Amino acid sequence: MYFHALIPFKPINPKTRLSCVMNQEEREGFARAMLEDVVTAVNRTGCSATLLSTSPYACETALVAVRNDGLNEAIDWALPQFHCPALIIMADLPLVTAGALQRVLSTEADMAIVPGRGGGTNVVFLKSPACFTAQYYGSSFRKHLAMAKECGFSVEVIDSFRLSTDIDEKEDLVEVLIHGRGKSREYLESLGFVVSEEKGRVGVTRGDATPSSSHP
Amino acid sequence: MYFHALIPFKPINPKTRLSCVMNQEEREGFARAMLEDVVTAVNRTGCSATLLSTSPYACETALVAVRNDGLNEAIDWALPQFHCPALIIMADLPLVTAGALQRVLSTEADMAIVPGRGGGTNVVFLKSPACFTAQYYGSSFRKHLAMAKECGFSVEVIDSFRLSTDIDEKEDLVEVLIHGRGKSREYLESLGFVVSEEKGRVGVTRGDATPSSSHP
Repeated sequence: MYFHALIPFKPINPKTRLSCVMNQEEREGFARAMLEDVVTAVNRTGCSATLLSTSPYACETALVAVRNDGLNEAIDWALPQFHCPALIIMADLPLVTAGALQRVLSTEADMAIVPGRGGGTNVVFLKSPACFTAQYYGSSFRKHLAMAKECGFSVEVIDSFRLSTDIDEKEDLVEVLIHGRGKSREYLESLGFVVSEEKGRVGVTRGDATPSSSHP
Repeated sequence: MYFHALIPFKPINPKTRLSCVMNQEEREGFARAMLEDVVTAVNRTGCSATLLSTSPYACETALVAVRNDGLNEAIDWALPQFHCPALIIMADLPLVTAGALQRVLSTEADMAIVPGRGGGTNVVFLKSPACFTAQYYGSSFRKHLAMAKECGFSVEVIDSFRLSTDIDEKEDLVEVLIHGRGKSREYLESLGFVVSEEKGRVGVTRGDATPSSSHP
């Protein structure tokens, strides 16, 4: 089935909760690496993507629309532009694989949704986006289920660790180092991040201990 | 396919990282509720279970073996007792469903494994357990993959948010409140836990704010 992917992206000063272990330049590089993993997986399913970027950004493998309004507003602006099923996927899902996306795209329901950890929404697939409006921020998973009900959509919740794992905090990086297969993992390794065993769950440490400031 | 499930369980003073929001009696009640959800899902797949309990424990729906040695030792003691495929599943997976377990049990590989967050292992399914020894603690997911290689097993990694979500810390409780369908969610609600919107991801708050101490 043909669909078009919408990928919201913030190129400048993203992922501020990673500031404790990466400076701004490094966070921007890491965000680009995660985006590349997402776009690669989308392209492998045979489909094209448009980035909804908060500032101008050059991308070889996707269209770019610059939208510096809010996340929900950008998506609601984009959805009616494509007269086909839409996949809304976050840019910070570095464990994504084409196989995991195929489980979403092969749904028989009107809408497939993948929760993020902590009540969020990481992926939404809409066969007929017309009446749908985005409900990101806060408890968006519940809000999107309510929106689907309002639209009369049947819903399938896709059970995927890879797609549920969004990267926001230092503790999340260990998932990329253990389960990542793409550019994001390479990028973290190039910065010196390694898996370290701590009490209970394992964590990460960085070879050079602290990030150098890009704005001294 | 017939298999037998092994479920390690600690009835007394479990889940100490939840002490900030539950007293000991409540943590024990919550651990029992999570166990019940796991046993129910196992039974729904048509199979039986043995708890490897660190102290005597009465369970209507599973066999109980009291083993107060370590987790790995208890599993290694139990595996040769059952001359059939074995499912080793942790007791703190309250989002488990029979459907998610079926994805594990229907593997064509010699071993199926579900990672936990932070490098752990939440579920292992072994068609021929004979040469396998348990490698829990620390980066156990990697260790179990190495053990499979040593045994010459083909391996399938099962991609499941429900089975990857083990509950250790306060931040994990929100997943139970949002995605749980069984006794664990009921138990948390009976203690007054509700989803609360915080900056970024949503969290949980408890109606009566602090746990009453069971040992004042």
